[in-house]
Amino acid sequence: MRAEYSDWSGLMINLKVKLSDRSYPIHIGNGAFEAALAEFEKARAASKKLFCVADAAVAAKHKTKLAALSKTAEIFEINGGESSKSLANVEKLCSILAEKNIDRKSCLIALGGGVIGDLTGFVASVYMRGIDFYQLPTTLLAMVDSSVGGKTGVNIPEGKNLVGSFHQPRAVFADTRFLNTLPRREFAAGMAEVIKCAVLGDRALFSMLERESLSCKHSKLPEAIRRCCRLKAEIVSADERETSKSGGRALLNFGHTFGHAIEKCAGYGNYLHGEAVGIGMLMASRLADKLAGAESGNFDRIKSVLRKCGLPVKLSKLEAADMLEAMYRDKKTLAGKLKFVLADKIGESRTEHVDSSDVLSVLEDFLR
Amino acid sequence: MRAEYSDWSGLMINLKVKLSDRSYPIHIGNGAFEAALAEFEKARAASKKLFCVADAAVAAKHKTKLAALSKTAEIFEINGGESSKSLANVEKLCSILAEKNIDRKSCLIALGGGVIGDLTGFVASVYMRGIDFYQLPTTLLAMVDSSVGGKTGVNIPEGKNLVGSFHQPRAVFADTRFLNTLPRREFAAGMAEVIKCAVLGDRALFSMLERESLSCKHSKLPEAIRRCCRLKAEIVSADERETSKSGGRALLNFGHTFGHAIEKCAGYGNYLHGEAVGIGMLMASRLADKLAGAESGNFDRIKSVLRKCGLPVKLSKLEAADMLEAMYRDKKTLAGKLKFVLADKIGESRTEHVDSSDVLSVLEDFLR
Repeated sequence: MRAEYSDWSGLMINLKVKLSDRSYPIHIGNGAFEAALAEFEKARAASKKLFCVADAAVAAKHKTKLAALSKTAEIFEINGGESSKSLANVEKLCSILAEKNIDRKSCLIALGGGVIGDLTGFVASVYMRGIDFYQLPTTLLAMVDSSVGGKTGVNIPEGKNLVGSFHQPRAVFADTRFLNTLPRREFAAGMAEVIKCAVLGDRALFSMLERESLSCKHSKLPEAIRRCCRLKAEIVSADERETSKSGGRALLNFGHTFGHAIEKCAGYGNYLHGEAVGIGMLMASRLADKLAGAESGNFDRIKSVLRKCGLPVKLSKLEAADMLEAMYRDKKTLAGKLKFVLADKIGESRTEHVDSSDVLSVLEDFLR
Repeated sequence: MRAEYSDWSGLMINLKVKLSDRSYPIHIGNGAFEAALAEFEKARAASKKLFCVADAAVAAKHKTKLAALSKTAEIFEINGGESSKSLANVEKLCSILAEKNIDRKSCLIALGGGVIGDLTGFVASVYMRGIDFYQLPTTLLAMVDSSVGGKTGVNIPEGKNLVGSFHQPRAVFADTRFLNTLPRREFAAGMAEVIKCAVLGDRALFSMLERESLSCKHSKLPEAIRRCCRLKAEIVSADERETSKSGGRALLNFGHTFGHAIEKCAGYGNYLHGEAVGIGMLMASRLADKLAGAESGNFDRIKSVLRKCGLPVKLSKLEAADMLEAMYRDKKTLAGKLKFVLADKIGESRTEHVDSSDVLSVLEDFLR
């Protein structure tokens, strides 16, 4: 898989994700929704049925768009919260699809954030052993994070995303106008993933983030999203099923080992995922300083960009020992070794096993 | 995908199923279970965890084998009835796997008939987005029908197998000694699938079935199973995801359009699937006679082999009109056209759309 560019064309830009068995386009910007409608009309003309699973909150805020969509697709609204990612909802949706005579030639549409995309993508991958689906992400996080990679899944009481599949969408339409109604804090949390991509593999994007203050209406936002999708596509292409022993898809976990521990120790829901990852990136930056002597000033540059986006850069009230224990329990910790993504320079990263004493010292420093 | 032969080696024979992305062996005969144990021991030595989902009834009848298996695999027993193929059981099994710290490198083992294989295969395909699994089929139907094709799935109230995936096993071990405890009626129902394979694509196998009376201990049974698996592998290879417009995987539905209608109209459970398919093959044979003038004597030859296996060859008490309606409601009936697999000669078959008047006349003839 390789990501290629097509032209900037006014408000909309495109990216083609090339995969061995199927390629698909990502359309980004103001107008992507209309491009989606045009594609859905073509599908209807070819006698395909379309069934859309929509985040109820998004549907309530974008009634005109939903009314337009309802001309080509049957719409089913669902709560966009994490608890919707359940096998009970998979069964419920599959039953509805069967009742509506959705057949193998039909397509699903996911309209919402990551929860709706993960759930709908999983349903599409198992209903009648797999049917096509489209992604219409409506949060910044879903636009940069879920558009590429093909990961779908639901939660079980024992853990998040423990049930899932790899299922590529036919196309992704990321219309940035949906971000106008996204709560400010959620937009910032999405920006944390943009910053993550910049630090781990796109120095030019990072410089842009230092110069500009991206808001949901900023003209450079679609370009930032496209660069994140491109980077992710390149990483995923080299390691589609996350089997690489070093580097590979694991690079996308930059800030996540610390971030997951923050989410867990602070109690889920107290920090948004992006907020925890933001602080996690700072911790990982300190760790890189300590171990190998990272490029000087990295820590301050990352901190300054996080702050500009309205993301937290400090933590207190957590215990270093608790966080270390949480890291050891993380499902990605194999054979008891802590593995981190370290960025020695902005835009260049690698994975490395790290001694717990070094991790502990960074944590203590941070939580003082 | 092509199926190749390896040597007959005393009691055990092998078949290699070649697939684009992965190949796997099928080991058939007395001794396949020990071959499985040897493979599992190797996996354990490579620090893989093994978790076996076993049909409780099989486990109760084969305690020595289960004790041997329990040395390398954790065993979880489950009821082998159709109602076990549910998303509730998928969730239950995934929760147990998570509790037992089954990771991406671990393997599942399905020990039982088609229900256990379909359920366990589906769990293997979605737990942590897919882990490896082995099939140890213990019924004749599962040996010939589920060993090749990679179809997994569970039922929802709206229909059978409406939720599922394609997931190939790492290997299949079909030990014919498990058939010693299979109820006679179920063995016969499995033979219906063997006869089906013979009629649709293996004239030599059909002649063998005419000459011999295969029982579970017959020395030619492993060869018959191997020939069915080989035929199925060849058909599936040409049409892995059942997308071919004519012929292809649909050929494997020989006898099934009538068979499904029989099961439905007689009330599910009154006829075993294989019994209904047996009568369905006779009906399809009459239909071929009527339409194109099939090879003379086919009908009587098929009937005679079905009888020898102890399978029913007559139906009464059903209404032709009800059966026709059931066929139109079958999920495989697309755009209101009835499609049948017709064998003009023993060993050669094709798919064809047929007018309902011809179908009705065959049904009326049969149900008189």
